[in-house]
Amino acid sequence: MSVPTVSKVLNGRSDVASVTRERVVEALNSLGYAHRAPAAAATRGGVIDLLIGGIGTLWSVEILRGAEEAAARAGRSLVVTNAVGPGFAMSRWLEALVQHRSLGAVVVTSRATQRDFARLDGLEVPVVQLDPGGGAGGGHARIGATDWAGGRDAARHLVELGHRRIGFIGGPSDLTISRDRHEGYAAALRHAGIELDPELVRHGEFMPASGTELAHALLSLEEPPTALFAASDLSAMGVYHAAQARGLTVPGDLSVVGFDDTFVCEHLSPPLTTVRQPLAEMAAQAVRELERTSGGGRPRIELATTLVVRGSTAPPPHASAGRAAPGRPAPGGSETAP
Amino acid sequence: MSVPTVSKVLNGRSDVASVTRERVVEALNSLGYAHRAPAAAATRGGVIDLLIGGIGTLWSVEILRGAEEAAARAGRSLVVTNAVGPGFAMSRWLEALVQHRSLGAVVVTSRATQRDFARLDGLEVPVVQLDPGGGAGGGHARIGATDWAGGRDAARHLVELGHRRIGFIGGPSDLTISRDRHEGYAAALRHAGIELDPELVRHGEFMPASGTELAHALLSLEEPPTALFAASDLSAMGVYHAAQARGLTVPGDLSVVGFDDTFVCEHLSPPLTTVRQPLAEMAAQAVRELERTSGGGRPRIELATTLVVRGSTAPPPHASAGRAAPGRPAPGGSETAP
Repeated sequence: MSVPTVSKVLNGRSDVASVTRERVVEALNSLGYAHRAPAAAATRGGVIDLLIGGIGTLWSVEILRGAEEAAARAGRSLVVTNAVGPGFAMSRWLEALVQHRSLGAVVVTSRATQRDFARLDGLEVPVVQLDPGGGAGGGHARIGATDWAGGRDAARHLVELGHRRIGFIGGPSDLTISRDRHEGYAAALRHAGIELDPELVRHGEFMPASGTELAHALLSLEEPPTALFAASDLSAMGVYHAAQARGLTVPGDLSVVGFDDTFVCEHLSPPLTTVRQPLAEMAAQAVRELERTSGGGRPRIELATTLVVRGSTAPPPHASAGRAAPGRPAPGGSETAP
Repeated sequence: MSVPTVSKVLNGRSDVASVTRERVVEALNSLGYAHRAPAAAATRGGVIDLLIGGIGTLWSVEILRGAEEAAARAGRSLVVTNAVGPGFAMSRWLEALVQHRSLGAVVVTSRATQRDFARLDGLEVPVVQLDPGGGAGGGHARIGATDWAGGRDAARHLVELGHRRIGFIGGPSDLTISRDRHEGYAAALRHAGIELDPELVRHGEFMPASGTELAHALLSLEEPPTALFAASDLSAMGVYHAAQARGLTVPGDLSVVGFDDTFVCEHLSPPLTTVRQPLAEMAAQAVRELERTSGGGRPRIELATTLVVRGSTAPPPHASAGRAAPGRPAPGGSETAP
């Protein structure tokens, strides 16, 4: 490869064949070439990247909003790339980072592999990972939410209302965020002396259709749950559909708790009780972290979740009376301690 | 200004004072300087811009998704900027376009003035305007939806169900899209021989709170409407809140039609009847238009809207019987022609 060709690629010139450009990027990559002027991050201007697993979902909106706002405040332009879009190729994305001289990337997708992170490191592009997208992790700075505490709070709220049969509807079981929310749920149940029933735990996708399907499965059990904790607002919306299809009212017959507190929760009928994770703030924090990180060795930062109680949770229906919560008077007036 | 300084600005270098950079951009602007290599648009690579009035609203999600997908297919990186974000300044955005050598901009905001469009033309950055953001227009290519036909279809649907008192809840009255939807509504009523009552027409913001407020005003009229056409899904969601607060059921007591067909419509209770405008396709079309436009003189393209009938519309309550629609049997069995 000639020096002028490499120079053209580094300068983002377009008069280089695509194949050649890809080879140059690969070569620079393997040499650990720093394409970025060291002082660039100290001044305003320039471009940073957001790689996100999905544009159009409710949680992605919040992340986009927070990332864009923080980038604007730092004087950066924000390039947004959908990692699950039909036109996406990881190698082309890495090439584009070099082309537009990205000052850093916030990665919110489980699509990025260890090898991809190694290539990013090779390009000396600082990286911050945002947990809500899942993903393997590459030893970079990581921003997440207190998923475990959020799951615990959701289940504890239902226990305190008197529920004993509480189902869990998770996302993909290999995602840390889904596993942590499940662990929190299990801890709250154990703490209340409720035996864990593995039949009540299901994993799927964080999407409405999956929520509907898993809710139907749980509500078809011989001893169905009186409450469901769906580990995303989108799957909680799917639970509403299943309840409606079975003629169950929420929260009279079935209590539902979601996770995320996206825009739509307060507009659902009934408004959804959910665990709020501050997605926009998390994304803003990730962008700010980019501004000071050199890309590696930072600890994981967890932003606090909070339970937002709305109209989708209530005590269990009378049919399951006699199973009152600890400290709650049983129908006969005597205190029961299960 | 020295040639090296101007060169630095054109090359997107960061070692130029912000004030200086702004002056250079202004000067280049006034000279009509073309910062873009003429052949750039013919090859892959490079950056295009999306300036959008709001990130986080339901309609913006669809636009982002469509624009990102079309950009990815064309091999471009998409910079996203929120024109109503707290950190936004038009002059800084224009400066950033020069800095990252934008190949073109899709503008979806009413914030851009005629002067801003003139400055974009001065920078020879091709521009395509997307109508859903409103805006004055700068004689550039424009992509919109058939707003007039959409408004007519919404009102006609309500007329066919037997409604005669049909309220209109619009967005800002200076936005063409809102005016066109209103004109379509008015045309459908006139066509059905229904006298237009100016009291039934209100303008506000395309947001839930505005929808709630205007719905309360309309439902407090001496002769309240039996149906409301809200010219955005978000304001329709606000109408639901007003109905609930007044103890009215949708659609039993009040029919509601929205506009946009955003993701949330099918998850509302009842699912919202709405006019679908293909926002993602419109945004994709805008990006494709950028690829072939030189920035001016293109006609306006309107993509078709379609009425999506769901659960929020029904015949008016019995109280208003005797006002059956043309051709619809009146309660007595005889045909009435109003």
